[in-house]
Amino acid sequence: MAVSEFELRRGRVGAGLAARKLDAILISGLPNVRYLTGFTGDNALLLVVSGKSILITDPRYEIQAATEVSCRVKITRTALTAEALAAIRRLGLYRIGYEPARMNCAMFESLKARLPLRAALEPVPGWIEDLRMVKSEAEIERIRRSVELNSKAFEQAVRHARAGMREQDLAAELEFRMRRLGSEKPAFETIVAGGARSALPHGQPGSRRFESGDLIVVDMGAMLDGYASDMTRMLHIGAPRPKVKRIYRAVFEAQLAALAAVRAGAITARVDAAARGVLKKHGFEKAFVHSTGHGLGLEIHEPPRVGRRDKTRLLSGMTITIEPGAYLEGFGGVRIEDTVVVRPTGCDILTPTAKHLREL
Amino acid sequence: MAVSEFELRRGRVGAGLAARKLDAILISGLPNVRYLTGFTGDNALLLVVSGKSILITDPRYEIQAATEVSCRVKITRTALTAEALAAIRRLGLYRIGYEPARMNCAMFESLKARLPLRAALEPVPGWIEDLRMVKSEAEIERIRRSVELNSKAFEQAVRHARAGMREQDLAAELEFRMRRLGSEKPAFETIVAGGARSALPHGQPGSRRFESGDLIVVDMGAMLDGYASDMTRMLHIGAPRPKVKRIYRAVFEAQLAALAAVRAGAITARVDAAARGVLKKHGFEKAFVHSTGHGLGLEIHEPPRVGRRDKTRLLSGMTITIEPGAYLEGFGGVRIEDTVVVRPTGCDILTPTAKHLREL
Repeated sequence: MAVSEFELRRGRVGAGLAARKLDAILISGLPNVRYLTGFTGDNALLLVVSGKSILITDPRYEIQAATEVSCRVKITRTALTAEALAAIRRLGLYRIGYEPARMNCAMFESLKARLPLRAALEPVPGWIEDLRMVKSEAEIERIRRSVELNSKAFEQAVRHARAGMREQDLAAELEFRMRRLGSEKPAFETIVAGGARSALPHGQPGSRRFESGDLIVVDMGAMLDGYASDMTRMLHIGAPRPKVKRIYRAVFEAQLAALAAVRAGAITARVDAAARGVLKKHGFEKAFVHSTGHGLGLEIHEPPRVGRRDKTRLLSGMTITIEPGAYLEGFGGVRIEDTVVVRPTGCDILTPTAKHLREL
Repeated sequence: MAVSEFELRRGRVGAGLAARKLDAILISGLPNVRYLTGFTGDNALLLVVSGKSILITDPRYEIQAATEVSCRVKITRTALTAEALAAIRRLGLYRIGYEPARMNCAMFESLKARLPLRAALEPVPGWIEDLRMVKSEAEIERIRRSVELNSKAFEQAVRHARAGMREQDLAAELEFRMRRLGSEKPAFETIVAGGARSALPHGQPGSRRFESGDLIVVDMGAMLDGYASDMTRMLHIGAPRPKVKRIYRAVFEAQLAALAAVRAGAITARVDAAARGVLKKHGFEKAFVHSTGHGLGLEIHEPPRVGRRDKTRLLSGMTITIEPGAYLEGFGGVRIEDTVVVRPTGCDILTPTAKHLREL
């Protein structure tokens, strides 16, 4: 019988427990639970013990967990922590790792107060996130399919974009197409913002109607089979003014420079600097108010970060976004974003969508 | 100049600090930040100090925060916690409350390690959530509008439902209509599950096509102006078999019994018992695997819970769902859900949608 990818991952964590002087690790981050078990429900704890992991969830997910999960499943009508403590006692576990960025203080205190004598909780920050950073080829294929679905939804929806349309109508169209193409849901709140509102890096689609001269930012992503995509493209109603062309060119060149800097072995801050340097040359350095990119996979934001202070060495198989932007309050903003896979000598750009300023 | 609802709420928290022997409270739960400031971004900390609160966020939200927020705003390019610590030092704060269920262990440790000498973090569980439980009439109006939009989207989309349609296509249609009607996003992952899959209380829409004899569960909610709605209705392809009618009648009676038990002063466990008792009478007690309902407002799940062990005394102005169900593995399931407002002598059912088993 084939060993599933989930069993392999749990095996890897189980084998790493001893080196960390742990008897077990309690996984409370749901994307980490999914990574290690395939479970897609939204209430679970996973106790990884070498060779005998236990997923704890509630009765709403009983049928689903039986289908999705290959390790032992415990269904409880009370608090998940009570069941975790019972397992800790039953199995005689003393040093139990936990995920400090994925567990809230209330849960921590409730566990700590009822641990068996001599047992202790040990913080283990970022272990599963580190494992998740480098994707398997099977995962890269899933991300590629998510990216392609997302781009297809963009093409289908943008055909309907025109002056007079409200931002929220274009967002509705984009998400409708994603869904129809098989996406579970948007990977994040779809951003559609026109005119001066395009200067909001995270502008929520509103009831403003597109009008002539509008610069429009569309930042969208889909979840497909659990994996995220992320893309930003710019639209323009009518022919762009010289100032718009100037900003667009600067961001476009910055994005190409950052893409050219991506390869296994490169430090993320260097990729960010490549984009930032180009924007500086064009006089838009201060208008670039965020990082150049971020990892994505089971979550829309994962390590590594690609910002000016981030010192991660890129590894082949990491999937990241490259998305510089420039935002001028009261005027408008431009961002261009692709999803890419880090490779030994460069990167594969997964996003197939053309990158010109699309005039409507 | 009018004092905004947000200033009133911050004033209420500020006035409550002394009784809790606190100099300030650090709000890390984003829905709580929104409740107290109106800020809609997804990265923020709010330090509430009597008369001089400070919202801390990052540069992506600079323009937006200036528009939305009436208290002081501090934009930082580094960690929000570093800025919070700087404010704590500057203002000479020593006893600082925090939200244990809304702060992860990593953030807590990072704050604690760098607090000024003699300063301490004190857990304050559920304070803002308690304030949020009873809605103002203005909030109830927003929830009513969200519920009405949601029901309208349901009617518009269900017109297209028919045998041969995939679950994901109906979900796409539902969410498209929500968006077109002005919703920011779905309040949760829309559930559409047909046939035996309707027995999954949280079934994700998939590629299965509806066929004759299918029982179909549709559980959907919209966010409108920040407020959630939540409704479940059942569809059926063709005329239902006697067993389907039997389950439907049992759940329908259980829902009516629970609705009849809602009034200010009632204990939530009694409302749950009303539904559970009816299902027991029909022999479906074990098929009802979740609670009868939950509060909703800025979040889709808020206190109070309406389950068998929940002892909250209902107050006029609380908004809750009433949603008993019965699930038979391999056969199918039924759930019927409304959003209601607790009133002195009963409840206002906000959901206008008819509650019969809708045959397609």
